[in-house]
Amino acid sequence: MFDKILIANRGEIAVRIIRACREMGVRTVAVFSEADRDALHTQMADEAVCIGGAKVAESYLNMQNIISVAVEKKIQAIHPGFGFLSENSTFASMCEVCNIKFIGPNPSVIDAMGNKANAREMMIKAGVPVIPGSDGVIESIDKAYEVADSLGYPVMVKASAGGGGKGIRIVRSREEMENAYESAKGEAMAGFGDDAVYMEKLIENARHIEVQVLGDQFGNVVHLGERDCSLQRKNQKVLEESPSPALSQEKREEMCAAAVRAAKAAGYQSAGTIEFLYDKSGNFYFMEMNTRVQVEHPVTEMVTGIDIIKEQIRIAAGEPLSVTQDDIQIRGHAIECRINAENPDKNFAPCPGKIQSLLLPAGGLGLRVDAAVFQDYVIPPYYDSMIAKVIVHGKDRQEAIAKMRRALYEFVIDGIDTNIDFQGMILSHPDYISGEFDTSFIEEKILK
Amino acid sequence: MFDKILIANRGEIAVRIIRACREMGVRTVAVFSEADRDALHTQMADEAVCIGGAKVAESYLNMQNIISVAVEKKIQAIHPGFGFLSENSTFASMCEVCNIKFIGPNPSVIDAMGNKANAREMMIKAGVPVIPGSDGVIESIDKAYEVADSLGYPVMVKASAGGGGKGIRIVRSREEMENAYESAKGEAMAGFGDDAVYMEKLIENARHIEVQVLGDQFGNVVHLGERDCSLQRKNQKVLEESPSPALSQEKREEMCAAAVRAAKAAGYQSAGTIEFLYDKSGNFYFMEMNTRVQVEHPVTEMVTGIDIIKEQIRIAAGEPLSVTQDDIQIRGHAIECRINAENPDKNFAPCPGKIQSLLLPAGGLGLRVDAAVFQDYVIPPYYDSMIAKVIVHGKDRQEAIAKMRRALYEFVIDGIDTNIDFQGMILSHPDYISGEFDTSFIEEKILK
Repeated sequence: MFDKILIANRGEIAVRIIRACREMGVRTVAVFSEADRDALHTQMADEAVCIGGAKVAESYLNMQNIISVAVEKKIQAIHPGFGFLSENSTFASMCEVCNIKFIGPNPSVIDAMGNKANAREMMIKAGVPVIPGSDGVIESIDKAYEVADSLGYPVMVKASAGGGGKGIRIVRSREEMENAYESAKGEAMAGFGDDAVYMEKLIENARHIEVQVLGDQFGNVVHLGERDCSLQRKNQKVLEESPSPALSQEKREEMCAAAVRAAKAAGYQSAGTIEFLYDKSGNFYFMEMNTRVQVEHPVTEMVTGIDIIKEQIRIAAGEPLSVTQDDIQIRGHAIECRINAENPDKNFAPCPGKIQSLLLPAGGLGLRVDAAVFQDYVIPPYYDSMIAKVIVHGKDRQEAIAKMRRALYEFVIDGIDTNIDFQGMILSHPDYISGEFDTSFIEEKILK
Repeated sequence: MFDKILIANRGEIAVRIIRACREMGVRTVAVFSEADRDALHTQMADEAVCIGGAKVAESYLNMQNIISVAVEKKIQAIHPGFGFLSENSTFASMCEVCNIKFIGPNPSVIDAMGNKANAREMMIKAGVPVIPGSDGVIESIDKAYEVADSLGYPVMVKASAGGGGKGIRIVRSREEMENAYESAKGEAMAGFGDDAVYMEKLIENARHIEVQVLGDQFGNVVHLGERDCSLQRKNQKVLEESPSPALSQEKREEMCAAAVRAAKAAGYQSAGTIEFLYDKSGNFYFMEMNTRVQVEHPVTEMVTGIDIIKEQIRIAAGEPLSVTQDDIQIRGHAIECRINAENPDKNFAPCPGKIQSLLLPAGGLGLRVDAAVFQDYVIPPYYDSMIAKVIVHGKDRQEAIAKMRRALYEFVIDGIDTNIDFQGMILSHPDYISGEFDTSFIEEKILK
């Protein structure tokens, strides 16, 4: 096992990783920006080093500075958390060159999954259902018409090198195609320096369901069940749960088996997530693989009892998985609410500032709050607005919902605006309670 | 189910009960003393009523005032928590008379278990091992010699009506008997108005292991495994865990089966605990039954997933147990540390006062903090010094210990003294880590 690792992140995930390390007897080096001198991760790590200015380009994305600290502090591994450098294969390669273990998959796997057209092809070969679409790149407008006719409208034209929702056009009829095709190519060239586009059928009113996998260096891959992450606003997840209320046991096994095939096909090591779209007819389609730990990993931890961060660290240290598929049981139901410093009444504008008083609702059975805030802490304006995750575990979904409502009710945070009441509205909506929702739910049922 | 219940307690257990009620959709009425106007339970309940002065006799033990509030607020049941009126059969009877459900066993069961000689006899009949001793009351000094000779020294002379460690004498040889016998009788008369004494063999270097049971109104009784509570200082539990590192699976089943027989013999309803002494030879002996929820109930909740407070409320409302014995599985290992506002360096003198800053270590997988404190809260000097319970759950005992050490390390509480470092000393002691300890551990290994 490692003696000392560096955590190249901030906020609750940095704190979460420090906690796991301390329980494993691994010392920690935190890095922090000038705006994060008083942050909890800076205070909690065994050592902490300032790596640059408040702007992420100067600090949390500053690969050179992070590697310098790593070398100076003689750490053996870097945990990138999520966001920032966590899916940056250049950074993973730099670590490799410096003889530092990057806690995540190999750079080549990050790249293979980062290229969407490539990932899609790998999935087809592995027998994982993908969204019906073109066989590779669409070379001409005539080909675009032909493929769209065979798929049936609506379709999406998507940049091969795309990401972050850029270079995507929805096409609902033949009349819209030419415009969409040209503008997607233009945006792709402008955004990614590559105008290649491909086409997929648009799956509407679908759910976002993802499967957590773990793979080790010995070729072992297990899944830890699925998470339903359909509750999103502008493609940002808001509330996640496990298991999904939409899946039958049969469909669950089918989807999880596909995820394991996908991870095996990729030669995947570490924790990863296979995201699927699940349509109303019960079909599921590969969307993408996230080659890092997810914000919502705690719901899986709560239903399985498996510490995903510790598994990542063990795998990176060359240990085999601590569990086999047969050891893994899904127990009860877990829900996570992301608590953001933002104002839902002002179009969710971020609300950094000083926390005047704070009472986290941690206490009682099956309640967990992963946070990096404390009373009198000043939330800096430079980073993601998520300040805490409230996670509950109940014997069934109904108890989990009741528990989350209790937790949000007693959550006290003064001095800043948050989305706590907004989360409460979701949890009180009859369609949420009955499990009837898809990715349009927040826009259609809560915000309208 | 009840619409509204009253919680006749304060501190973390009152908060714990309020939380369970809120999750069940049951409204809550808190009662508070004049010293507890700003207490968390006062703030968190749906309604709160002052019942008297800071002294417990004027408030939390003031049966008339509590019943008056109950009647005025039209509540249907009272949860007494632990301590205070929780094992007071007079109070339970008053509730009955006022048509209020006392959340606990019937008054007659409280009485039957409160009388130690009586409880002992009931256990013998139920085939539960008791500490070898006299067949009822010892009527004369000659009989005392005779019984002691047959038991073998050392023995204890104990007041039949006793409790709280009063009216007990340890007798290590025939020479000490006459003095001990007379002084025990004298103390029994002075303390309880009844000079009857009985005799038990003194079991030395034993562990305190107790079994949690649940019984409903339909005669169903289940056990939830055991807790090892051997770590005590002056008969006060300090750290508890489940399962006990001392028991083989065979011995565990034997002890738990005896506990179920004991509860069935008592016609027990609600949550209760059968306390055993477990000696070095693997024998266990009934000590007493606690007819209420225990401080340490969370360790059992963490390994079984069963919410004991909710079960108590459901049972009181006339519902059957939500689980059968076959449903109950013990998973992993849980430890609880009681965090007290006290100074171990000054003979554990209580340290009430203002909490200047506070960071509870709740966060990450398998960590729970049941507390009733917050930053800027002023701990009043009138009540028990316990201010929080840190409870961890790990996949095995080793992980649970590591997790607790991590939690204590990051627990920040300024402005008052606490036993956090003292708990850390226990968790770092090689004999604790190897599971080799009995009730003398703290005195012999930590304090010496």
